Amino acid sequence: MTNKKEITAGIIIIGNEVLSGRTKDINTSTLAKWLNSIGIEVREVRVIPDIQSTIIFTVNDLRKKFNYIFTTGGIGPTHDDITAESISKAFGIEYGIHKEAYSILEKYYKPGEFNDGRQKMSKMPTKAKLILNPTSGAPGFYVENVFCLPGVPSILQSMIGGLNNILIGGDPILSITVSLRTVESEIAKSITSIQNKNKDVEIGSYPFFKAGKLGVSIVLRSSDKNKLNICNLELLEFIKSKDIKIIETI
Amino acid sequence: MTNKKEITAGIIIIGNEVLSGRTKDINTSTLAKWLNSIGIEVREVRVIPDIQSTIIFTVNDLRKKFNYIFTTGGIGPTHDDITAESISKAFGIEYGIHKEAYSILEKYYKPGEFNDGRQKMSKMPTKAKLILNPTSGAPGFYVENVFCLPGVPSILQSMIGGLNNILIGGDPILSITVSLRTVESEIAKSITSIQNKNKDVEIGSYPFFKAGKLGVSIVLRSSDKNKLNICNLELLEFIKSKDIKIIETI
Repeated sequence: MTNKKEITAGIIIIGNEVLSGRTKDINTSTLAKWLNSIGIEVREVRVIPDIQSTIIFTVNDLRKKFNYIFTTGGIGPTHDDITAESISKAFGIEYGIHKEAYSILEKYYKPGEFNDGRQKMSKMPTKAKLILNPTSGAPGFYVENVFCLPGVPSILQSMIGGLNNILIGGDPILSITVSLRTVESEIAKSITSIQNKNKDVEIGSYPFFKAGKLGVSIVLRSSDKNKLNICNLELLEFIKSKDIKIIETI
Repeated sequence: MTNKKEITAGIIIIGNEVLSGRTKDINTSTLAKWLNSIGIEVREVRVIPDIQSTIIFTVNDLRKKFNYIFTTGGIGPTHDDITAESISKAFGIEYGIHKEAYSILEKYYKPGEFNDGRQKMSKMPTKAKLILNPTSGAPGFYVENVFCLPGVPSILQSMIGGLNNILIGGDPILSITVSLRTVESEIAKSITSIQNKNKDVEIGSYPFFKAGKLGVSIVLRSSDKNKLNICNLELLEFIKSKDIKIIETI
């Protein structure tokens, strides 16, 4: 909305384990918060199965729509880790041993432990650039605007900091969250009128149950600090006029 | 893969709060586990923003690809709740007060409390069928193969049971999970050869860290019980031969 210089991202979660419900995806939240902090807005997330044709289609569909694409999952040593080969095919570039990745992994493991499975983790688009992995050695990689990260949340978290100097963000997206002891239907009309007066601030309304009590979080988001503050003042004025209890402001 | 009668689903999570990272989506996991149990396989999840054109495009794109589509979020009383109107437009059908929904909500609230915001929750495609809400009154709805549910997880959970008699599933997808004290690269080669011999069983390999220790969960999935058991026996034989410790079997 307000972003003067709008930089967008898409996330592709590759993994049958999320589609089967076995694993709850938390990488989206990690990536989105980090990207917001450097001025990149996540516009779409797709969760797709470990099927090569689907990965190729989705990567090629989204990499044209957004400035950056992040994939998670499928870059380990097992048979179901097919992201690296699929990315090579999506770009139509050579897939094979990446010399730098091979060298990193060879040093990481003790002599004799650098087996076939581990060597597989050095196979990727041969001209990819690496994303270093301070936790468990095996690097991620990127080709053009597509960044491939592992699915294990703690490893992914440890790797994204290394990308801060590579990605070019826009204005950071600022937010204010005011949590209220009320229900949505009591405030809907007034929030709509505040939204109509503050077009450059995105206002979200999210009901919750906490400790057996109902509440609503109102989230204001904008990359324009002044407009965000003006909108917040209008919100607070409305809250005061209706004598609604504020539970928390973040 | 093996499903003789394969019934598929797509999930559309509508909500800026997931894209901003503020909220972690847990509805996918709830829906996927329930759908698996009635023989419906989730093939794709998309998380999209509260933008009408995006909702319309995504619904129309996915409803042709899969047997069932489930949307979550955006059916409350506030300005950012635009799912119902978007679904009407996606199908090109009338949007307005749904008589049955209006009547349910009118009875649910005390006299004088059925305000504008609450009345908005009875607006939807006028010819939609309702999905009853035992938790908080406001019903979800469905049009053809598109089922619209709320975003609040506890409310969503309370509503899906009502759909068991409406959805037509295939053979339930069965699974066996064996968690091992090993690392993926030690077992990758053997698991690949087990996968190659058991084409009708989908084998997934998922590394984890728990209580500071590394492990790998091997997940076998199939709708064919015999084939699943044969594959499991081969897996157990391999595990025994390598003297790998089994942490847990589910």
